[in-house]
Parts: sequence; structure tokens; C-alpha cells
Amino acid sequence: MLKKYRTLWLTSDEFPLLEIIDQRYLPHETKTQVLENVPDAVAAIRDMQVRGAPLIGITAAFGMYLAVLEDSSDTYLNQSALKLKASRPTAVNLSWAVDLQLKHLLPLKPDERIKVALDYAIQLADDDVDQCRLIGEHGLQIIQKIAQNKKVPKPINIMTHCNAGWLACLDWGTATSPIYHAHKLGMDIHIWVSETRPRNQGASLTAWELSEAKVPHTIIADNACGHLMQKGLVDIVIVGSDRTTASGDVCNKIGTYLKALAAKANHIPFYAALPSSTIDWTMDDGLKEIPIEERDEKEVTHIQGLTEQGLKTIQVTPKGSSAKNYGFDVTPRELITGIITERGICKASPHDLATLFPDKSLI
Amino acid sequence: MLKKYRTLWLTSDEFPLLEIIDQRYLPHETKTQVLENVPDAVAAIRDMQVRGAPLIGITAAFGMYLAVLEDSSDTYLNQSALKLKASRPTAVNLSWAVDLQLKHLLPLKPDERIKVALDYAIQLADDDVDQCRLIGEHGLQIIQKIAQNKKVPKPINIMTHCNAGWLACLDWGTATSPIYHAHKLGMDIHIWVSETRPRNQGASLTAWELSEAKVPHTIIADNACGHLMQKGLVDIVIVGSDRTTASGDVCNKIGTYLKALAAKANHIPFYAALPSSTIDWTMDDGLKEIPIEERDEKEVTHIQGLTEQGLKTIQVTPKGSSAKNYGFDVTPRELITGIITERGICKASPHDLATLFPDKSLI
Repeated sequence: MLKKYRTLWLTSDEFPLLEIIDQRYLPHETKTQVLENVPDAVAAIRDMQVRGAPLIGITAAFGMYLAVLEDSSDTYLNQSALKLKASRPTAVNLSWAVDLQLKHLLPLKPDERIKVALDYAIQLADDDVDQCRLIGEHGLQIIQKIAQNKKVPKPINIMTHCNAGWLACLDWGTATSPIYHAHKLGMDIHIWVSETRPRNQGASLTAWELSEAKVPHTIIADNACGHLMQKGLVDIVIVGSDRTTASGDVCNKIGTYLKALAAKANHIPFYAALPSSTIDWTMDDGLKEIPIEERDEKEVTHIQGLTEQGLKTIQVTPKGSSAKNYGFDVTPRELITGIITERGICKASPHDLATLFPDKSLI
Repeated sequence: MLKKYRTLWLTSDEFPLLEIIDQRYLPHETKTQVLENVPDAVAAIRDMQVRGAPLIGITAAFGMYLAVLEDSSDTYLNQSALKLKASRPTAVNLSWAVDLQLKHLLPLKPDERIKVALDYAIQLADDDVDQCRLIGEHGLQIIQKIAQNKKVPKPINIMTHCNAGWLACLDWGTATSPIYHAHKLGMDIHIWVSETRPRNQGASLTAWELSEAKVPHTIIADNACGHLMQKGLVDIVIVGSDRTTASGDVCNKIGTYLKALAAKANHIPFYAALPSSTIDWTMDDGLKEIPIEERDEKEVTHIQGLTEQGLKTIQVTPKGSSAKNYGFDVTPRELITGIITERGICKASPHDLATLFPDKSLI
């Protein structure tokens, strides 16, 4: 089912293992790695070999399959679930996928678990692809409406942040899915790719994706986003989400909030594109309730890139200075024009989200 | 008069030349360079060996002295003035300093010009130090007021952007002058240093300055600024300015506008600290009228830093992607709590600026 190149696929073993693109070397090198067991899966998530809320979830689902391959006992399954859930603190998809597997597997006898775990992980992966495709089809309508309202035929300038692309999912991406759908139709679009310090997922991953797909794009420093909006050079902002509250607050890569503030101030539509697995129905107040991951300060003080001698890491800060590294911020619902989901587009409000998802939790 | 280490000083020759800290190698190496003539001065400004609006102005003033050292004719003086003014487009201090020298020198006989040009450049440099000191004394009062209103005795968290420090001036700095004054008094302060992509002047220069002066500080990605404000971790934002309109709009390093938006949304005071030489009395609407410098995209796609083998430059973007590099943005006066000048603090409004500076242009 999983063909190269999605972001992960299965090996051809009788009991297949999981193979991933190790995204830490993009855009300069395309390396892959086989994950054989739970420690491998935990490391892949923690060290950001795979990243992006949907992909983290799917990797964890396959991680639960790798757990039963190793040891199909209840004890090991429960231990593995805890370890996988602790590998990254912010993305809700991680707990969602692990809990789904637990719920399916624990009632079964240990020897029945391997096939079910594998099949269920594959189903979640295929569902993710479907969801991303649907997000793209819905989001496309917004871009088409903007195109219709353009007085002068100029490219539609879409700004995005971080990488909510196919590299963050299985295929299509979330924020990028409307972009790829518009590009497939031959629409005249141009993407502002915000580099997304400190890990530069925009400059490295999103730019690489768009480059591969031949979508016109330009990389900018995160700092330039407000200026571009003030100058009328942005028609719409589309970002992803790592966790969305039932009330419509969106937690996404650090810096998203600043773009939302600038979009609001300049009357530019600001959308979050997300599969419903990102919605945490147990939370209301994103600012108060969502834990924000603090990561190693080295991600701020050091940067990896290409030299003539291959990949090198440089230090950009003085030796006597320390840094803080917050992974995410919360954009309050008031700044969000709408949320694009696999079921359609709705306002970022508790009422509209509940109406679109009357079944709420998919678990 | 200019002692090591200000940002520039004179050599001990009979007709002294200008020596500068070549800031491109900070924080990793402290290199200096002697500027012998106008091409040297133009290159130093254009290539950002010196940077920061006040320092650019003073360097250009000494550049005019170097011009008369080379050739004291009207023709060469006028040509040099044009070249110096064209070396960076945004900072108004550049034209201001060059025009002041022209006004003083052109009425004189060529053989009288050398001494006058030198004395006048020295006077401008000393004035700059005085102005920065006064900005610090005025700004200190704001910090003291915040300290008085703190319910729990915690450090006062001051956020700044880019480098409006002594490295951007001759001494003290503009935005950092209140900080250094507070630190000298032993106040409990902590500085959030925004790294300031793409050239990282915050992470490299401001952090280096604060580190040398033993002021507690933490480097953050520019993207983190909104999050810190949402979480109550910022008491005041103080930035510099490269050009300020008569109406109070502030043009400063790209990304300043995003901080101002976030400060406004979170009810955090936002100040611009600037010598009056930064005010362009001929301009009203900063967004429409101030030309924004676009710089080489390589500043976005490549980053310099330290490795075990010395300074190296790495490429962080895919080879197939291009970038845009805007140097500045404009923060509209509505987002600015106040402007700290050498004459005192005033609102960012045409009336208040005109009241503080009834003489307006200092030329």
C-alpha cells in the first residue's frame, strides 16, 4: 500500500518493518531509515527524523505494530504506548493514534495482535491520505474564490509557515494540499515560504517540496511576513496545526501567532488546514491548556547546512549566551478566518466545529 | 577623542585615518580595519562592516573627511557625497551626516577643508555619544516605573530586536542605552534577544554586547516573540529606528512590526529609542514614503557561523529555491507607546514630535 515516496512505507519482509525518509538531512540529502522496534520509533519521533502532527501520529501507530512484533504481551504494549506518547509533548495525533491502537489490540489475544496492529496502522495511513486530499479539495475553493475576485490577473500569493506539506503527512500535506490542488489545475499561484526558525522547516522542507513539484515560490525570513502583508503582497495565509481546541484555538509551529496578528491587521484571510485528528475535544482554552514543548537550545544556537565539504553545523551565537527554544505557539480563534478540515470549512468557533463534527472524538 | 573600543576611532597619523570594528565577524572574531578613502568608507557601509543608523551616519561623516584628504576639490566632494549617500538606501542619518558636512565644507576654500571636516566628524561622533547617553537616562525612567509597579520582585524582562546597541552607534547604543543604565544601577533586568534573521544581528551582536557587559540575557528565534508576550514574560519592548517620520512611524529592522503588533495585542509597552538625527521631517506616511532596502538573497539562503575549523558559510535552502530579502519594515505610529529621544520621551504623533523638536531639522 505505501509506495515510495510517501513519507513512510513498509519493507517487503514477511512481517514488514517501517521505512521512513529521515527528514533531518533534507533538502540537501534524501536519506531513508528502517525502524525495527519501539526504541527506533520513539527516537524517530523525538529526534524529528519524522515530524508534522499527522506523520507523527501515523509513525506512532506503526510503532505500536512494531511493539507487538517485538513482544505481544499486554505489559509491553502498555509500556510502549507510554513511551511513544512521551516522545513529543504537543501533537495530539500522537496520543490519538496510540490510544486507537491500544483500544483495538488490548481486547485481543496476544497472538492475534500482529496482523490487526499492522492492518490498523495501514488503515490510519490511508485515511490520512484521504483526509489530506479532501482538505485540498475544500481549500481549493477558497483559492478559486480569491482568483475570481482579483481585478488584475496576477498570481495568487499564498503564505505558509513551517512545513504542513506532504512531508508532514503521508501525502498531499494539510496546508499545502490546497496549493497542490490549485497547481494541478494550472492556476497562477506563488507561495511565500517562511523559513521557520529555529529548525528552518519552511526553508528546507516546504521549499524542497514545492521545488520538486515545480510550484513557484520564494523563501523569506520569518521577520518579513508582516512587511509583505502591509505591502499587499499576500492574498491568503494557510498554516497547519499541531493541536486545535474544541473552541477553535490553533496551536502550531512557533511564529504562527505573529502571522495571524499581521493577517488580521491587514485584512488578509488566515486559515488553518487540519485533519480532525488534530482536534483535542477535551480542551477549550488553547493558551492556558496546551503544553508548549521546549526543545534543546542548540536548535537556536547552531544551524546545519550545506558546504562544499558536505553538511556542516555552525554556531551562530556567542559562546557566553544561552537560548530558549519554544516549539509552538497558540493562535487564538479570534484571529482565524476559518478552519479547513476533511469534512469542509468552518469558522474557528466551538459551535461551528461541533456542528461539523457532531460525533466529536473519532475514537 | 575616539578611544578603543568604541565602534570606530582615529589612527595616530598626522592626518589620521579611520579605524573600525569589522562587525561581520562578530561574535566569533573581533577584527578591525583601517578605512583610507571614500571607496573604503562606501564599502564598509554597503557591506555592513559597520551598520546601525547612527554608526552609518558617523562613518559617512568621516568618509567626507577621507574625501577631502584624497582630493579637496568641490567636484570630488560632491561625487563622494553622492557615493556615500547611495551606499545604503534606508537610513536617513546617512544623508543627514553627509549633507551636514557638505554644508560646512563647500563654502570653504579647498585647503581649509581637511581640518574642518575632521573636527566636524569628531563633533558629530561626540554628539552621538551624548545623545545615546541621554536616551539611556530618559529610558531608564520607564524601566524604573515598571520596577515600581511589579508586585512580585522578579527581573524586568525587556525585549529588543536587531542590534540598536553600542555597536550600532559610537557608544551606549540607542535601544540598549536604557538597559546599560539600568544594569549600572544594579537593577534586576533580563533581556530577550531576538536573533533577527536574516543577518542575525541580535544573536551575534546584541548577545555579544550584553555578554561582554554581563547583562543577563537569552537568545530566542524571532518567531518566539509573540508566545513570550502571550505568556506574560515580557514587560517592555525597546527597539531602535533607522528612519522615523515626522508623524511618528518607525522604520526599523525587518520584523519590528511583528513585535509591535504582538505588544499591542498583549498590552505591553512598545518604545522606539532614537536620536533625533533619525527623524526625517520631510516624511509623513512611513508605509507609503520610506524606501525599503532589498538586499542580496544570499543573506537568507546562506548563514555564517563558527565551526571547529573556523568561520564557515552554509547554505540552508534547496538549490532550486530563490529568496527575497527585505531589510526593514515600518511600524505605524498607532502601535508605538512612545519615542525615547535625547530630549526626552514623547508620543509617536506629529504634534508631540514637533513640540519636542520645535527646531525640527537640525541641519
